[in-house]
Amino acid sequence: MSGDKEQKEQEQRNNDLALLIRKFKFAKVLDSNPQAKVISLQGTIDGQDAIVTAEKTHFAFDETVRRQSEHGESLPLFYHCENEYSCINGVEQLKELTSNDIYHWGLAVIKQDIEYNPTAKLNLIWPATKVHIRKYEQQNFHMVKETPEIYEKVVKPYIDEMSNPERLKWVYNILYEGAEENQVVYKDYSEEKPKDGFVILPDMKWDGINVDSMYLVAIAYRDDIKSLRDLKPTHIEWLTALNTKIKSVIPACYNYAVSPDELRIFVHYQPSYYHFHVHIVNVKFQGSGNGIAVGKAILLDEIIELLNYLGPSGFEGKTIPYVIGENHDLWARGLDEEVRNQMKEEGIPKAPKIIENFTMDQQS
Amino acid sequence: MSGDKEQKEQEQRNNDLALLIRKFKFAKVLDSNPQAKVISLQGTIDGQDAIVTAEKTHFAFDETVRRQSEHGESLPLFYHCENEYSCINGVEQLKELTSNDIYHWGLAVIKQDIEYNPTAKLNLIWPATKVHIRKYEQQNFHMVKETPEIYEKVVKPYIDEMSNPERLKWVYNILYEGAEENQVVYKDYSEEKPKDGFVILPDMKWDGINVDSMYLVAIAYRDDIKSLRDLKPTHIEWLTALNTKIKSVIPACYNYAVSPDELRIFVHYQPSYYHFHVHIVNVKFQGSGNGIAVGKAILLDEIIELLNYLGPSGFEGKTIPYVIGENHDLWARGLDEEVRNQMKEEGIPKAPKIIENFTMDQQS
Repeated sequence: MSGDKEQKEQEQRNNDLALLIRKFKFAKVLDSNPQAKVISLQGTIDGQDAIVTAEKTHFAFDETVRRQSEHGESLPLFYHCENEYSCINGVEQLKELTSNDIYHWGLAVIKQDIEYNPTAKLNLIWPATKVHIRKYEQQNFHMVKETPEIYEKVVKPYIDEMSNPERLKWVYNILYEGAEENQVVYKDYSEEKPKDGFVILPDMKWDGINVDSMYLVAIAYRDDIKSLRDLKPTHIEWLTALNTKIKSVIPACYNYAVSPDELRIFVHYQPSYYHFHVHIVNVKFQGSGNGIAVGKAILLDEIIELLNYLGPSGFEGKTIPYVIGENHDLWARGLDEEVRNQMKEEGIPKAPKIIENFTMDQQS
Repeated sequence: MSGDKEQKEQEQRNNDLALLIRKFKFAKVLDSNPQAKVISLQGTIDGQDAIVTAEKTHFAFDETVRRQSEHGESLPLFYHCENEYSCINGVEQLKELTSNDIYHWGLAVIKQDIEYNPTAKLNLIWPATKVHIRKYEQQNFHMVKETPEIYEKVVKPYIDEMSNPERLKWVYNILYEGAEENQVVYKDYSEEKPKDGFVILPDMKWDGINVDSMYLVAIAYRDDIKSLRDLKPTHIEWLTALNTKIKSVIPACYNYAVSPDELRIFVHYQPSYYHFHVHIVNVKFQGSGNGIAVGKAILLDEIIELLNYLGPSGFEGKTIPYVIGENHDLWARGLDEEVRNQMKEEGIPKAPKIIENFTMDQQS
């Protein structure tokens, strides 16, 4: 049965992830978020570090009306909840836990199916670097006020290191090499002004299906903006055009299941990579972690507005307050010290020694 | 076989929920939260309204090492993820979606079991009242860019109405009448400058116990600041003193379980009441809803910084982008129209008529 064998090989080629996951040797739980039902595991595959992040899927909805999108996928227009996998019809077993008057609580097993109702989204990073592992590891967070001086001294040298072409290879792969091509939602590119364009594709946080949790990223072709810090009033026109373009095309790409004023469009500071990109999220999505939180996300509308006030050097001269995790390289590279200094300058008292010792005793 | 029958009846008595769920007739989706993987359905059981809320379970963990915490609960120290239902070992099917360089994405079906790995928690309210239904019903949210003109025309008249003393009676009760006195965490009040002071107490969102989810509110004695819009550079000194005071006293109030740089301190716009107050939240808390999201929360540090740029009229002259729900009075009082006008001015196309009609047909 060589046809069978061929088919199997074909399947394998299309399913590297399955092979890799089978070889995953679990080491420890990096992080666990019971609210979002997300877990991150560290382990090894063929002796090299790997990170598996799993996130439970949302409940299956019945999509009653579908039509073909411009890119060939069929997209849901309306939802019901009456298919065989829905949270009601899919219930295979049910166990009551307790009840009180009109209130009842229980547990259920619901029918799972790889095509129509998968249990979880998996994401594998392999081989993973120390930087990846630290990023996923549960950590303490701190508020930092990044002054222009701290930027010059601590942050800029780091950004310069992080924006070397090797680290941003995956971005260039998307922009120029056709990587994730089948994922691209919208591409704005003209031969005349190639650097003005951008590519929009789903963020890996999104399952690509449920419009309520829509999470896209627009990656700019221009490579002269490494972060928010580089934005100046000369960019207002380009940013405004980008903003308008996003609001104009995204609703159409998703068959108007979301309207232009239902998009939360923002950038991150610090971003996770230093090549200008914009997050586009359904305003309904009150997403995981710090992603849409103040102190991490800054609305594109707000950025454009502030550029009217900040003077010709733009964000270069502004103090930017934000949240940073202890696992971020910048923390150990100097932000920890800067935060301590700032608190001292502001006259905020430190925890008394006796408490510090007590805490340390308990931890050891 | 009367024994069999008895057993069946016994099972039924212990499993009312299963019987009720089997009879549930689906009507519509009340709410869907893809981040938390929660869905609420409205329907009927025996002709009476019912609400079913289902929430996916978190991933199964094996807790191998436990130790006693200071507070008597035993807390897991280490997690493993190696039982037969874990996100790795429990994988029954796996489908790769895409891969790029070291990143792989896919979907998985994981083994479910009513005892050891149920799919979801279910909660039934039956018979449900109209009040229950309204409470569970989802509203749509929109991004608004509030210009100074929109503020004057739509928002200011509303704020003036909402800040009449009768509506803010509960605030004055806290400030002057000793209401919720036993809840007060810190009170800053001097006879010389009574209006400079503030009271800090727990927000009702907080359980008051778990410092990781700490959520406090500082309410100012001064009543001349109704919202962010009223803040001017003349307030910088007072705001800075307030900020420093909060960072100085709160860690001490909670026995240094949180440090000054672990507090996310912010105001809301729109706030839920128009008397100046500041939210103080553990930076770890990545809580549900819009509360700490960009487009609702603005860091106090950022406000102070921006007042250096905005000129003598402060936030009065700034365009403020934010998220507003359709249930908010301001939406129907004019923000809906203003958003439509803004999109038209920016040249953002509306959904084509045919889709709109089509949509309405489907809904009716």
